[in-house]
Amino acid sequence: MKIYNIDQIKDISVLCKRGGTDDRELFSYVQPILEEVEKNGDRALKKFSEKFEGVVIKDLEVKSESRISDELKAAFKVAYCNIEKFHKAQIEKNREVETMPGVKCFRESRAIERVGLYIPGGSAALSSTVLMLAIPAKIAGCKELILCSPPPISAGILYVAKMTGVNRVFQVGGAQAIAAMAYGTETIPKVDKIFGPGNQYVTAAKMLLQSKGIAIDIPAGPSELLVIADDNARPDFVASDLLSQAEHGEDSQVVLLCTDEKKVNEVLKVIEKQIEVLPRKKIAKGALKNSFAVIVSDIDQAIEFSNQYAPEHLILNIRSPRKYINMIENAGSVFLGPYSCESAGDYASGTNHTLPTSAYAKSYSGVSLDSFVKKITFQEISKEGVKNIGPTVETMAESEKLQAHKNAMTIRLNSIK
Amino acid sequence: MKIYNIDQIKDISVLCKRGGTDDRELFSYVQPILEEVEKNGDRALKKFSEKFEGVVIKDLEVKSESRISDELKAAFKVAYCNIEKFHKAQIEKNREVETMPGVKCFRESRAIERVGLYIPGGSAALSSTVLMLAIPAKIAGCKELILCSPPPISAGILYVAKMTGVNRVFQVGGAQAIAAMAYGTETIPKVDKIFGPGNQYVTAAKMLLQSKGIAIDIPAGPSELLVIADDNARPDFVASDLLSQAEHGEDSQVVLLCTDEKKVNEVLKVIEKQIEVLPRKKIAKGALKNSFAVIVSDIDQAIEFSNQYAPEHLILNIRSPRKYINMIENAGSVFLGPYSCESAGDYASGTNHTLPTSAYAKSYSGVSLDSFVKKITFQEISKEGVKNIGPTVETMAESEKLQAHKNAMTIRLNSIK
Repeated sequence: MKIYNIDQIKDISVLCKRGGTDDRELFSYVQPILEEVEKNGDRALKKFSEKFEGVVIKDLEVKSESRISDELKAAFKVAYCNIEKFHKAQIEKNREVETMPGVKCFRESRAIERVGLYIPGGSAALSSTVLMLAIPAKIAGCKELILCSPPPISAGILYVAKMTGVNRVFQVGGAQAIAAMAYGTETIPKVDKIFGPGNQYVTAAKMLLQSKGIAIDIPAGPSELLVIADDNARPDFVASDLLSQAEHGEDSQVVLLCTDEKKVNEVLKVIEKQIEVLPRKKIAKGALKNSFAVIVSDIDQAIEFSNQYAPEHLILNIRSPRKYINMIENAGSVFLGPYSCESAGDYASGTNHTLPTSAYAKSYSGVSLDSFVKKITFQEISKEGVKNIGPTVETMAESEKLQAHKNAMTIRLNSIK
Repeated sequence: MKIYNIDQIKDISVLCKRGGTDDRELFSYVQPILEEVEKNGDRALKKFSEKFEGVVIKDLEVKSESRISDELKAAFKVAYCNIEKFHKAQIEKNREVETMPGVKCFRESRAIERVGLYIPGGSAALSSTVLMLAIPAKIAGCKELILCSPPPISAGILYVAKMTGVNRVFQVGGAQAIAAMAYGTETIPKVDKIFGPGNQYVTAAKMLLQSKGIAIDIPAGPSELLVIADDNARPDFVASDLLSQAEHGEDSQVVLLCTDEKKVNEVLKVIEKQIEVLPRKKIAKGALKNSFAVIVSDIDQAIEFSNQYAPEHLILNIRSPRKYINMIENAGSVFLGPYSCESAGDYASGTNHTLPTSAYAKSYSGVSLDSFVKKITFQEISKEGVKNIGPTVETMAESEKLQAHKNAMTIRLNSIK
């Protein structure tokens, strides 16, 4: 981990830049996969599974039960309750607004009918991501909820899928799984929106399909954590948080902004100790290579930097963190105080862990109940309303040279004269 | 306008299919424009304006004042108030949820800092679209609000831009304007999200840039209206509504679902009369060629059809329309009763007229206050919270083989033993 002093940094934007992949190369690699799945359906899925994952799949759909420990069942239950509580609080009350006498406007939410979840397999099979996506989908009232994940699907994922009411589970991964949910195949139904993280091929597939009008959750990049710590922060807490992010992948990035140079060195020492015992030590070390610490003069300066970096996860391990909430402009999810570790939010605090990376937090929100609904606007205009709003509509339509728009109102005005 | 009887229709999905354009051709035409703007900035913008619009632009930025009639000023003011009222009602109250003792979660909205609006010029310069985009942007608190529109920019657009607090206006149109706002040029600042309608090149540019992670409002296609009418509906009202949509463009589509065959024929007769006096008669006639009417057996059947079609605009010109609201699953904006003409919503009722077309209403909402903010989640966990949630996090992290995630919690648990 490099250490900078904020005064020595000429251009902060350079440090805030994420290491992007070459879209064009990725896209031209993924595009033919999408086309073949659209054309050949299941046959293409099985071919690619054999080609990329070396697995021969007989049945794409998985109906088998799964066994997990009672301890894990209990943990899933606690997480389920917390995530459900927080996302249920996002249900909107519909308010009717009479914008002028006789002109009533309101808005209602409707669930997106068919939703597809992609859950990566591989080094860490994220059963927690099933909770994060399926629970709000169920609260929203999505009718059809399907899940794709590369074979073999972990017992944890299968258990949570059943627990959360996922309707059907398919053992297929990669870009081909995304294509299957976008276009539909003989076995896998087409969905209206696709959710979930994945490797660069999965992400490229989602971005390409989005450009064809297929709805996705949010663009995704490598996971990130930015920690702001003061002289009061415990080095072992800070070190453990940085490592919990670093173990995600070698392309992950962790950033430490600290007001105290001594503290930074302590943290780095503790990291060296803690990292040695990690099973994913090699990955964590790789991530730390892309990571850095900055010594800042005060917390305000740190938050200014953080707003420009727009981190996926932001930990404020400082005194009275609530004082700084209003200053935070760009972040996915924020963890307040020494005891709010990122892993709490990753699993069970109740907030969603599907969050904007790569500075997308400047323009995107993380996944929430909103992600699973559309909001339809309604208006009801009475005769009185027509009298009140009519002349305005006529004048504006006239000014835009849209005579038929005007006529629709004029005819109504005349009818009630 | 073709007339079908619902019983004769074998496959409704065929009628619901929109006439799409060839993405690939469009994309390969637009891609080089985007690249040249990214590379050459203002120089490229001026070159393309001359090439495509035959206009030589000296200054990209427009600072001139504009004069419009007092009548139009008054109309804009009424529309402004209604739109502001409806969108202000969308401001969310932040609710803190204690998901379990000592674990507090909440969510706060933050404005997207820099927003770019694209306003088409050409046959109908939509000053109303400036109202629809700039008003919620201002309510959200967006700091920098810029507008691009092809030269010459209409007085109405310039007036509304000033009235709504748009910071800077640039006279550049087409795909090159979208690229300018996405990448930034010497004159035009880069923005965090791009809004606004446009022709197929503008749309292709937005979709291509979105696949590179640049945020846009919603995918766009030709405008549409679906009217559900019963035997009680006035043919002249229905005809005027269908024509108000048809005059938008030859690629627009209007659909009439009616329970009464006689009524359908009456409406078509009235259309023939009303269309003759329209300045945009040729366009409207073109649109009617892609349009159709369906005779349905009852309103339930009509709404079922409409949900599958997922119209941008839906008019319920029927008795007691509120009875059917709960059945409506997919639509952009809905107009209830005989006096709620679409043009009221297009201009001044208060709802937003930037809506999902081409059946995108199945997965997308129209533009609202939400479109101009990000929602950041927060969590604050106390020592008590760590005791309560700790074991759950440890167990789930263990099950995902993410030891460092577990450690971050274990260290905290141990610290308070």
